[in-house]
Amino acid sequence: MSNTFPADSVGLVVPKTHHFHEPLPLDSGRELPEYQLVYETYGELNQDRSNAILVCHALSGDHHAAGYHSPTDRKPGWWESCIGPGKPIDTNRFFVVSLNNIGGCSGSTGPASINPRTGERYGPDFPIVTVADWVRSQARLADVLGIDCWAAVVGGSLGAMQCLQWAIDYPDRVRHALLIATAPKLSAQNIAFNEVARQAILSDPDFHDGRYLEHGTVPRRGLALARMLGHITYLSDDAMRAKFGREPRGTAGKLSFSFDIDFEVESYLRYQGQSFVERFDANTYLLMTKALDYFDPAAKHNHDLSAALAHVQARFLVVSFTSDWRFAPSRSREIVRALLDGDKDVTYAEIDAPHGHDAFLLPIPAYLDVLQAYLEQVAEEVGA
Amino acid sequence: MSNTFPADSVGLVVPKTHHFHEPLPLDSGRELPEYQLVYETYGELNQDRSNAILVCHALSGDHHAAGYHSPTDRKPGWWESCIGPGKPIDTNRFFVVSLNNIGGCSGSTGPASINPRTGERYGPDFPIVTVADWVRSQARLADVLGIDCWAAVVGGSLGAMQCLQWAIDYPDRVRHALLIATAPKLSAQNIAFNEVARQAILSDPDFHDGRYLEHGTVPRRGLALARMLGHITYLSDDAMRAKFGREPRGTAGKLSFSFDIDFEVESYLRYQGQSFVERFDANTYLLMTKALDYFDPAAKHNHDLSAALAHVQARFLVVSFTSDWRFAPSRSREIVRALLDGDKDVTYAEIDAPHGHDAFLLPIPAYLDVLQAYLEQVAEEVGA
Repeated sequence: MSNTFPADSVGLVVPKTHHFHEPLPLDSGRELPEYQLVYETYGELNQDRSNAILVCHALSGDHHAAGYHSPTDRKPGWWESCIGPGKPIDTNRFFVVSLNNIGGCSGSTGPASINPRTGERYGPDFPIVTVADWVRSQARLADVLGIDCWAAVVGGSLGAMQCLQWAIDYPDRVRHALLIATAPKLSAQNIAFNEVARQAILSDPDFHDGRYLEHGTVPRRGLALARMLGHITYLSDDAMRAKFGREPRGTAGKLSFSFDIDFEVESYLRYQGQSFVERFDANTYLLMTKALDYFDPAAKHNHDLSAALAHVQARFLVVSFTSDWRFAPSRSREIVRALLDGDKDVTYAEIDAPHGHDAFLLPIPAYLDVLQAYLEQVAEEVGA
Repeated sequence: MSNTFPADSVGLVVPKTHHFHEPLPLDSGRELPEYQLVYETYGELNQDRSNAILVCHALSGDHHAAGYHSPTDRKPGWWESCIGPGKPIDTNRFFVVSLNNIGGCSGSTGPASINPRTGERYGPDFPIVTVADWVRSQARLADVLGIDCWAAVVGGSLGAMQCLQWAIDYPDRVRHALLIATAPKLSAQNIAFNEVARQAILSDPDFHDGRYLEHGTVPRRGLALARMLGHITYLSDDAMRAKFGREPRGTAGKLSFSFDIDFEVESYLRYQGQSFVERFDANTYLLMTKALDYFDPAAKHNHDLSAALAHVQARFLVVSFTSDWRFAPSRSREIVRALLDGDKDVTYAEIDAPHGHDAFLLPIPAYLDVLQAYLEQVAEEVGA
């Protein structure tokens, strides 16, 4: 490892790509004729292949969870606080796999990829994918990597939904499922926020029915609005108060008496919206929100979550944050209750943190301690 | 009263208009050279002019608070549940005045009006108006109507902010101030929602820098998005769950696997957005959100709300709703605490209601009972 990077970082990482030539059947009834997944790995797979951890990403995440792609990178991967030598997901002990999901925009097959059946970009013709579709594609990646059973599958938010689905769909391939800041399904309010975000994108004249790249445009306005709205739901009211208060931007509390920026929070949101547009694809955003809306593993069990979880074998760690109003602790407790009703093994931690939903990405000591303690046990169990 | 209308309705009402030729000075430092206010009155002013109640409207409200404009009207005014013979704001006892604020789009001078100095529509040149500006314009209407002192000023949400400002700016002209579902200033999160709504409108290509009427267009997409977003904040998560659950729209819970409507809540929001566009003006929406953001009577008192309220003479009724997360009960209690700190007379009622912020417009028995009981006392006090 280069001494350019912090000692507790995995350092320089190089993404890998695997191309799958076998079609992937999808919940929609459609299929992906072929696809590729881009992924990163950190740490070493042990002899008996028992120390592998899968990290699943959330709405706007990707495969780059830890380390750096170049010595000049300003920022490390999105979960650098949690993954690395000596960290909770300890790369001295575990072999960590992190991938970009299909439908994504960071290298895995998605709306901007070429549809081999038409020779054109998928664009809006990319199929709507579900959490279960992702898990199915991830299981094939596990096959490729020779991993029969994950020591743990770990994720926050939409990432945690994938972990829950893993435990349901592949009960013998998951030892531990770590679900952070999530819900067993979206509430009407959650769906409502997603719908407004989608409408912002779909109604942007530069969206061109999803064929914006062919038109040489990007629906910047719509995607920025979607992201601004998302950010409101990621922060708690208290976190916003602590971060911005009603602090006026600029000089001496003077109001602009215009529609320019008056308050710091406006400046923050506009910046978040604009910078997101540079790195994220609008069609992917639409797909990710729909995967969230559709996630509801209890639906085919007559809305009985315990029934949906009847055959899971994994042991669970469920973590929530007190100030998270996007997926409040009560939503996590629904999962815990359903697991307990089925006599499953579950540990639940409710972390007192003021940061809102964003907390799952932050280096909050009590939270990292819980992960560290739990994964320490997992490591011992698998001999890592 | 025509027997076409319910017996407890004020029945057919005809809006009145008053034109003010004297310029109105504004907090921005600008002035309105002249302006008109459209208003309605219900009930009769008594001999000693002591029984007048001013009703102040919220973000998307107008002067039409009660009764019907024609026998064929499908809906009465926006606060029909509260205003009428025998209702809490009893028109057998009180003389009720309800107006459309300047900057509005229902008949009072606003962005769609002609600027007498240019002969063109104001459009984006309409000055940013504040709650204090509105109150100043309302005081002139009171002068015109010969009302020296209101028996009560009453409003919900942004309407309640006007009532609070009345009590501060005209202490000897307000006997009682009834503040419902409000806050002494917006939180960063409140401002954030307003900012996303504004950006939706401002970034709509049909907005044309606010001169859309001259271009023969309307920023429909942006205004609809703003309204959809607003509606999310008006309902509680529980109210949305009760109203829509995750009920799929259409047949047998089948998902569309497209970006069409899958859930009832999406259908509701799209309808709300589209219908709002037919009745509301985008420039007015921008102004109303900015008036909300700017409201902060404590600001010029070193952020000490008690100091801001030091000279009020009115007695207060403050009402909040348990499930209101836009202006939560804790925000109302800030006002109550500041009043108590200054030894002011205040009654506080926290109504247990699941409807969210919208509750202030709904016929919730416990809520209407509180208003009725309080206003009964007011009526006796003023001999109405």
